[in-house]
Amino acid sequence: MTTSLVPTPVDVPCGLAAAVPTPPPGDERLARLSLNQATVKPRSLVQAVDSVLRAGLPSIGLWREHVAETGLERAARLVRSSGLRVSSYCRGGFLTGRDTRAALDDNRRALDEAAALGAPVLVMVLGGLPEGDRDLDGARERAFGALEELVPHAAAVGVRLGLEPLHPLFCADRAVLSTLGQALDVAERFEAEHVGVVVDTYHVWWDPQVREQIARAGRGGRITSFQVCDWVLPLPSDALLGRGMPGDGCIDLRALRRAVDGAGYTGDIEVEVFNAEVWAADPDDVVATMARRHVQHVLERG
Amino acid sequence: MTTSLVPTPVDVPCGLAAAVPTPPPGDERLARLSLNQATVKPRSLVQAVDSVLRAGLPSIGLWREHVAETGLERAARLVRSSGLRVSSYCRGGFLTGRDTRAALDDNRRALDEAAALGAPVLVMVLGGLPEGDRDLDGARERAFGALEELVPHAAAVGVRLGLEPLHPLFCADRAVLSTLGQALDVAERFEAEHVGVVVDTYHVWWDPQVREQIARAGRGGRITSFQVCDWVLPLPSDALLGRGMPGDGCIDLRALRRAVDGAGYTGDIEVEVFNAEVWAADPDDVVATMARRHVQHVLERG
Repeated sequence: MTTSLVPTPVDVPCGLAAAVPTPPPGDERLARLSLNQATVKPRSLVQAVDSVLRAGLPSIGLWREHVAETGLERAARLVRSSGLRVSSYCRGGFLTGRDTRAALDDNRRALDEAAALGAPVLVMVLGGLPEGDRDLDGARERAFGALEELVPHAAAVGVRLGLEPLHPLFCADRAVLSTLGQALDVAERFEAEHVGVVVDTYHVWWDPQVREQIARAGRGGRITSFQVCDWVLPLPSDALLGRGMPGDGCIDLRALRRAVDGAGYTGDIEVEVFNAEVWAADPDDVVATMARRHVQHVLERG
Repeated sequence: MTTSLVPTPVDVPCGLAAAVPTPPPGDERLARLSLNQATVKPRSLVQAVDSVLRAGLPSIGLWREHVAETGLERAARLVRSSGLRVSSYCRGGFLTGRDTRAALDDNRRALDEAAALGAPVLVMVLGGLPEGDRDLDGARERAFGALEELVPHAAAVGVRLGLEPLHPLFCADRAVLSTLGQALDVAERFEAEHVGVVVDTYHVWWDPQVREQIARAGRGGRITSFQVCDWVLPLPSDALLGRGMPGDGCIDLRALRRAVDGAGYTGDIEVEVFNAEVWAADPDDVVATMARRHVQHVLERG
């Protein structure tokens, strides 16, 4: 019997001993892993980049609020000098209001920022029903119409719009786009080089059509991003924060990753976990847990 | 200017003055309205029947737990002597476990009870993922396989199985059947006289395919039940209790009722609201609010 002199790392936020060793920087199993900044939301861009570099991840997904806090030019310099890829820029959208002009202007600014940061895609969450409104079809049509106005700017700056269907749980207040099939119906109105879809395991795992729609998205070259997090129970009182660290819930993440890879997607795999307990943890521990869970629950078993 | 001597009734649980008069017993607008017992869950079957009769509703949806509390024979006599229709019997299902024999026996008993009560349909909630399980396809196939074993008994006792897709919010812990399209894919493996689907506004309102799937269900004669309640925000900490009194939320109930009627459904319209505030209210106030909201938000404007 041997004993280790290195203490076993602990996964966060569950507090249990890690089931696999942490892949070290340079490990090829990290080659596609990206930290989405939402997973370490309370940390600045500088702190997030530091954690990503220490862990040896090659990529980061950026958020507007953190970039604004840092300043766009400084953020762009920081990311460029880090050598990291930018997997995505979050986020645009919220185009369901009765007057979308201000939102469109804001989305154009977001596209400009994405271009300055070297992000290939602006993740789009289309918005929910306006307060007191029951006209879901109307909200959808307004958002889809607004997209038409936005696509020329996306094309001009060379950033794709990634339409993200959100779990139907969020249909009323956040995203009238609820399934991958529906997102593709909209995306296919435009050229694939300008508009694609985001596949987030949390939002699509329940969908009986998820495999055929991932395949359809792949055939059309429409998958702009693949985001991973888990469905954990019970849902917290703020449903927005109910997402789990990969492996802590009931989603077969490996099966979905296989489907996305099988559809021809070769891009980054972002971990995006909105969760107050994850936010409270040390960001280096968060990134190390992510890396271990990626090996354990997302990639093929070694 | 005239003043009324009759105090304006108050809607529950919102506490606001009613927007329309309460339709009196005999009013033809009540001709299809049914109280599902879940809406007055803390009340006994006797109390629920009393409230329904006082309000002049023609129909009631029964629950197994209330029937068991009353005793099956007494419940059957009570309902028969009341002259009420039984719109549905809730509920069977929970067939996703690794060993479904006990669940199947229980479902056969539920079918026998439904037959004794004169209920035309047993509402089926198929169950979620077993604890610690990530195999959603496996859970679905087990439930669909168990249905095959159950259909002969349903046919023998003359009670239809009504497959109820639940909002994807409940996929993990309650129902791996998540959309009307998926429910129809399963139902259509069997004769329409034995297996149909339940359309519940709360569960289907977000679905971009809802209209075409309601039409498909109608064409096949598959709509066994139409249940109405509303989506209200924020979701409560217990997501099971987040349903709203019709009109308190953001679902276009009238549009969905039109779709169901347009698909040829002529049966009862059940109000099924799981909501702790509704349960705390006086059941006569609950039924009166239901009746007013039915006029205001579900039927055509008079």
